[in-house]
Amino acid sequence: MAHQKEATNRVEWKIRVADGSSKDLVPESGPAGRAWLGIQGLIAGLVLKVGRCFKKAWDLAVDDPRKVIHCLKVGTALTVVSLFYYTRPLYEGLGRNAMWGVMTAVVVFENTVGATLSKSLNRACGTLLAGSLAVGVHWIASQSGEKLEPFVNGASVFLLASAATFSRFIPTVRTRFDYGALVFILTFSLISISGYRVEKLLKMAHQRLSTIAIGGFMCILISILVCPIWAGKELHLLITRNMDKLAYSLDGCVAEYFNNSGIPVEKSQGYKCVLNSKAAEETMANFARWEPAHGHFKFKHPWRQYLKVGASMRRCAYCIEALNGCINSENQVPESIKQHLSGNCLRLGSVSSSVIRELAITMRTMKKSPRTQNLLKEMKNSVQELHNELGSLPNLLLPPPSIEATLPLEEVIPIATVASLLIEVAARIEGIVSATEELASLAKFKPAVERIAPH
Amino acid sequence: MAHQKEATNRVEWKIRVADGSSKDLVPESGPAGRAWLGIQGLIAGLVLKVGRCFKKAWDLAVDDPRKVIHCLKVGTALTVVSLFYYTRPLYEGLGRNAMWGVMTAVVVFENTVGATLSKSLNRACGTLLAGSLAVGVHWIASQSGEKLEPFVNGASVFLLASAATFSRFIPTVRTRFDYGALVFILTFSLISISGYRVEKLLKMAHQRLSTIAIGGFMCILISILVCPIWAGKELHLLITRNMDKLAYSLDGCVAEYFNNSGIPVEKSQGYKCVLNSKAAEETMANFARWEPAHGHFKFKHPWRQYLKVGASMRRCAYCIEALNGCINSENQVPESIKQHLSGNCLRLGSVSSSVIRELAITMRTMKKSPRTQNLLKEMKNSVQELHNELGSLPNLLLPPPSIEATLPLEEVIPIATVASLLIEVAARIEGIVSATEELASLAKFKPAVERIAPH
Repeated sequence: MAHQKEATNRVEWKIRVADGSSKDLVPESGPAGRAWLGIQGLIAGLVLKVGRCFKKAWDLAVDDPRKVIHCLKVGTALTVVSLFYYTRPLYEGLGRNAMWGVMTAVVVFENTVGATLSKSLNRACGTLLAGSLAVGVHWIASQSGEKLEPFVNGASVFLLASAATFSRFIPTVRTRFDYGALVFILTFSLISISGYRVEKLLKMAHQRLSTIAIGGFMCILISILVCPIWAGKELHLLITRNMDKLAYSLDGCVAEYFNNSGIPVEKSQGYKCVLNSKAAEETMANFARWEPAHGHFKFKHPWRQYLKVGASMRRCAYCIEALNGCINSENQVPESIKQHLSGNCLRLGSVSSSVIRELAITMRTMKKSPRTQNLLKEMKNSVQELHNELGSLPNLLLPPPSIEATLPLEEVIPIATVASLLIEVAARIEGIVSATEELASLAKFKPAVERIAPH
Repeated sequence: MAHQKEATNRVEWKIRVADGSSKDLVPESGPAGRAWLGIQGLIAGLVLKVGRCFKKAWDLAVDDPRKVIHCLKVGTALTVVSLFYYTRPLYEGLGRNAMWGVMTAVVVFENTVGATLSKSLNRACGTLLAGSLAVGVHWIASQSGEKLEPFVNGASVFLLASAATFSRFIPTVRTRFDYGALVFILTFSLISISGYRVEKLLKMAHQRLSTIAIGGFMCILISILVCPIWAGKELHLLITRNMDKLAYSLDGCVAEYFNNSGIPVEKSQGYKCVLNSKAAEETMANFARWEPAHGHFKFKHPWRQYLKVGASMRRCAYCIEALNGCINSENQVPESIKQHLSGNCLRLGSVSSSVIRELAITMRTMKKSPRTQNLLKEMKNSVQELHNELGSLPNLLLPPPSIEATLPLEEVIPIATVASLLIEVAARIEGIVSATEELASLAKFKPAVERIAPH
């Protein structure tokens, strides 16, 4: 019956659009069929997209399992706080303010201990400060008569919100107390519009603060006790890893140029990580200042000095970037000149990267290495040797009987540039050494008793 | 009378501590006096600190008055939302949920329109999604009996909070939907622990969503209508300004080296701004995507291409940094050689910076400049001329009758390096040109009809 009707419809439709030439209708190409195909395509696309997303998430999880642990920690913290309030029904005990505990847990729990501490303390201080100010303003408003009350309230919200918002632009506030200022505005406005009497406000403030304290405390506890991720340790590791990357890419760069490379090219791009890690370093250093002593790091560990070490490494990386550019440029140098200088350049490159590696070992073991100064001396000698070699180049290039004085200077320039940049890199490595040594003395690294072999 | 008593006290005290050797008591050095002095010092220090803080804030305000306007905007938005609810007493109409409107206004109002829009939409979507999910889960929990209910609730909070936290690590989510994920967790947990019946939940959800909508809408309105700060426009200006800085510091660098500088040295450090503006560019490009059409920018303006232009500028800045390092290094070149190359190097430097300035004009006027290609050609010619000049250097350095073939190559190398780096800078400027031209074609810049003179 349905089939018959469909056939009729189709015929009718065919008759309506017929323009003389008759066409066979392929069942699949009917509007329903096409829609079905479209839906199938859409579903397939969606499935593919979701699958790709899951793949990405899985890779992320495998790459850094601590991220998964962090998620489970957040889940646990929230569940604990939730159940804590769920078992004692709302509207009793801590009352409706229980939600502030959950809210605190959600907003405050961050990936690193430092970030969690910073946010918790900011939230606590912001709430306290705003709360006491708001109670005071509220009292003044309630004394000023029914007509003036909304104006006093409105003016106080306007003034304090504007001032607090402005304070968020001040650099020190922005880096350390931004969240506190936000919470200050929030709390002050909420209390101002609440319209409670002062006595009730005080009771509410007490309840709200205690729930916030419980939520924040739970987060801090879980964040410190279960697989803690310390911002300070992460910063230390980042700087150490970046040193290794810098050394590796310097080696790779020089090896690539002098054609005795066994290192794949993509490995020598590690300096790009150094170029791009400024923001990460600053964030971590900022959070690390809030952290208590952990592992080898004391409470007042000189985290700011890590930024200086990072900056000196970046200066070196800029130069390696330029070096890389020169290496990839079109001007090729005759093999003979290259061969002549390759020994010295390779030596300077390798001793330079050894210096960086030694610094990485100093950082990793947190012990002053006695080898650094020797390697530094060796590096300076290599620089001098390369200088001498460059000076003696013309003698070697022109056979003694030659009278014509035209030296193929143009052909020497590319390699001379590479050599100059290597020398400049060495000069900047001295900057890394002095920044790292300052760090070692500020953080009171002990001298290494036994020599740890570099790997 | 009081004076007499004070004198007595002082004598009594003197007798008590006397140890044989008599001392004159200087009135100011008594404990009270010292404490008073200490307090005075403390107050003076505090006043000085507060004064310095105000000075800093004042400088900040003078430097960018739009920041002050932003603060007044936030204050206005909050006051309006507050008074809106204050005039119709709480517990009526929208009920206690009024606070969500204030909360939204505080949290959502950001400096740029794009950021405000991004946060508002994230908040709306996060709340809606979490709300509908939570109502569903809540219903299931309520159907599963009184004993199982807390477990179903707890498990759902744990699972969804963990999953949402994990999603915040996925790069695309982190850059665009981070706040949405946070709001999702928050809303879901709050509803889960609320313990309401589903019907009451729906009513509450309706109220809460409408207050959030009013708060968010007010923020968006004020942010767009009153002196709007568009992230897109800011990004455009940042890139344009950075181009000018790059050109200026390239000129400054070359001029400083060839000793005919009139430009103060600190002015030539502008490339450092380019080196450090990656994070700012990325943030702004991310917010710009949320903005509607404004000024000369359409809705789908190619903001991502700005990042590519920025990256190409950074590559150029790395090279200028290395150039700056070589200029400041100790190896000085004999004046004669310097004089010989200075003309060509200065010409290349000036034509290179002209290319960058022309690109800045293209960006500023949003019109394709016909001069760019000519300048580019000129730059390539200058590069070739410098190459030739370097090649002819030995002929000039050695007088024709000389037989001895030792060229002072070591002395040539520093200037050869500078020249090579200038050539490399020119090569990287070509990268900026092609990135900017791609931007011009993607954003459909019109060809310039009249020539605008560079200033």
